Amino acid sequence: MVKVGILGVGTVGASVANILETNADILEARAGKKIVVKTGVVKNLSKDRGVSIKLSDNPMDIINDPEIDIVVELMGGVEEPYILVKKALENGKAVVTANKALLAYHRYELQEIAGDIPLMYEASTAGGIPIIGALRNGLTANHIQSIQGIMNGTTNYMLTKMINEGALYDEILKEAQELGYAEADPTFDVGGFDASHKLLILASIAYGIDAKPEDILIEGIENITQTDVAFAKEFGYEIKLLGIAKKVKDGVELRVHPTMIPASSMIAKVDGVMNAVSVVGDSVGETMYYGAGAGGDATASAVISDIVDIVRGNHGPMLGYKKPLESGMDLLFESEIVTNYYLRMSVVDQSGVLAKITKELEKFNISIESMLQKPHRDDELVKLLFTTHACQEEKIQEAIIELKRLDCVHGDIAMIRIEK
Amino acid sequence: MVKVGILGVGTVGASVANILETNADILEARAGKKIVVKTGVVKNLSKDRGVSIKLSDNPMDIINDPEIDIVVELMGGVEEPYILVKKALENGKAVVTANKALLAYHRYELQEIAGDIPLMYEASTAGGIPIIGALRNGLTANHIQSIQGIMNGTTNYMLTKMINEGALYDEILKEAQELGYAEADPTFDVGGFDASHKLLILASIAYGIDAKPEDILIEGIENITQTDVAFAKEFGYEIKLLGIAKKVKDGVELRVHPTMIPASSMIAKVDGVMNAVSVVGDSVGETMYYGAGAGGDATASAVISDIVDIVRGNHGPMLGYKKPLESGMDLLFESEIVTNYYLRMSVVDQSGVLAKITKELEKFNISIESMLQKPHRDDELVKLLFTTHACQEEKIQEAIIELKRLDCVHGDIAMIRIEK
Repeated sequence: MVKVGILGVGTVGASVANILETNADILEARAGKKIVVKTGVVKNLSKDRGVSIKLSDNPMDIINDPEIDIVVELMGGVEEPYILVKKALENGKAVVTANKALLAYHRYELQEIAGDIPLMYEASTAGGIPIIGALRNGLTANHIQSIQGIMNGTTNYMLTKMINEGALYDEILKEAQELGYAEADPTFDVGGFDASHKLLILASIAYGIDAKPEDILIEGIENITQTDVAFAKEFGYEIKLLGIAKKVKDGVELRVHPTMIPASSMIAKVDGVMNAVSVVGDSVGETMYYGAGAGGDATASAVISDIVDIVRGNHGPMLGYKKPLESGMDLLFESEIVTNYYLRMSVVDQSGVLAKITKELEKFNISIESMLQKPHRDDELVKLLFTTHACQEEKIQEAIIELKRLDCVHGDIAMIRIEK
Repeated sequence: MVKVGILGVGTVGASVANILETNADILEARAGKKIVVKTGVVKNLSKDRGVSIKLSDNPMDIINDPEIDIVVELMGGVEEPYILVKKALENGKAVVTANKALLAYHRYELQEIAGDIPLMYEASTAGGIPIIGALRNGLTANHIQSIQGIMNGTTNYMLTKMINEGALYDEILKEAQELGYAEADPTFDVGGFDASHKLLILASIAYGIDAKPEDILIEGIENITQTDVAFAKEFGYEIKLLGIAKKVKDGVELRVHPTMIPASSMIAKVDGVMNAVSVVGDSVGETMYYGAGAGGDATASAVISDIVDIVRGNHGPMLGYKKPLESGMDLLFESEIVTNYYLRMSVVDQSGVLAKITKELEKFNISIESMLQKPHRDDELVKLLFTTHACQEEKIQEAIIELKRLDCVHGDIAMIRIEK
């Protein structure tokens, strides 16, 4: 019999406890041993958790219990779980965590501390989708060329509504909050931070890159308007908040931002709260993994798959490498990213305006791929929409600063990156 | 260093040898050991294989070589590879096979023979997509409710062309043969047999069901016409050749047949030669896995992932169970399947015909959900298209026999199953 302790019995923790009980028959057959939860730890013992396990409010009742083989960490936060996970590993206990923030900041230290002790984290990225297993075990033959992931259900729900129903950003954010898809302070989701944690975890397995959220380009969906959505539709794109990891000649690009992608691509077809990760490998070509990225039971499914793998003896290497990668890859600076861009700006309706703008872009060697100007009322500013050929991020950022200085350009210039 | 022998150095075997060489750096870092091919076995030594490994025409040069740790079986066929894989396992060698037919017939004997020796087969099902790993490891927490897979690229290519370009079956079969997607004798693909082998492998992992291809319902795409395609479009369906495993109250349905599925479902959006498998679990909900189902490099990607897992010590249990499943599930008879049906029949243009047909269906308690009759020339038979509410396969089969006996019905009645 294998005994499990759960740090944090919230929605996911309760699902883990309940599924281990209700699916005990099939789990014992698959794992070869009975798996039972001995203790759950919560902050507030008076709240009903809907579980039949023994509860405590002292994490040490799990960490120091010699009977407990596997510690499941579902507390959230970074530094407190880091200390507890460290202690659990030092006590020789295997650890399963769903904590993406913990891993975004401490995965390499934890790998070091864990050594040969299993530390598994399937649930940290894209919920129930077994993407960690796919990348760490299923695609080992491949140099990974790119990863593009819809790894945040809140923003995908919002963008889907904006695209399919013409909803405005503020309306749909309010709706998402009412449905419980978005938090009262939605920044962590809509700002792209949640997705960045997951991207960093995947980038470690794919490329062995040790980066933290503050090292990479992160942009949220806050500035997407119906004008952008309409343009995307007309030019055959969908707009998705993607976590992108991409191997290029001189290193690896890591970035999270709203992205125009061809509407015909598989990942463009992923709607609502669902998540999906597309991985391109040099041998396998494109593969994609789709499913629920959140929710108690879906996340618990991933947590329990890790427990079963530990019981079976199938685990690790934690970050996918048994030996350091000799041909290690470097993270590119934001300024070095090369991609196509969409620009939206408001200009006065005068002759010569277009010439001024294209001349400015020319200075930075940026060439226009397509342009759209819709009919407008005489008293309105003209909305100019461009897409560019591939150019360097640094150039487009400089060009935007210069364009904003032109008298004919009013207000901000919006930019969305395009992946073909 | 780990030494590998390859039985069968055709397209996939050559890809395995070449990728192990070109991606040796990353493979050694991931597996922790250097992996090298010592020997490849081919029937005809005079043919150039485009590989730099030592070739032999005697399988025993691998099976009996004490230096070889892992035998990769890529020969095809059933009985010859069965004997060789058996001997390799008896000699204590781990085995990796891409051979779906071998597993469709002998997976339970092989599991018995292998015992604790790794026998891996990721490449046998859906090519480069790591679906075996997902189902065997990633989804262990779940009672699997259903599997729906596009597991044959040839037929998906043909159906996509028929649907998107209005191509006729015979035209598109010829084109697929010219492109090398279909064999001179296409029966194995278009008849659904290839997909059935893969379905049986997945059904073992999901349900522990020991069945052979002749035990299950297998229908091909040979009778799909543009009439069916047009109807499907009008009623919001796509037609796909699916391998379906479905847990119902009294057991498990296993079947391969052309299927009308909602055009809005993710799997309906998988076009061309690509494969995809949708798996619904009781905890995780729907997950889907997408990628190339064939091709040398994509298949080799899966073969090599198994080799790396073996080197890492992460393998098995072969069919997903460490202990027999106590609540084992039974395969339902074909006649017991319950689903919705589409029927196409040609009838004479007389009053009372529709009444006769609906009366006949009523006798079998089959109720009509939708009906379509298009305008036609006076001298033509009328094409009547129905869909039914859910009913038992036995009833629909009997009803079709009775309907064909009616004077007003001419020729055959086509039937396509619908999954909602």
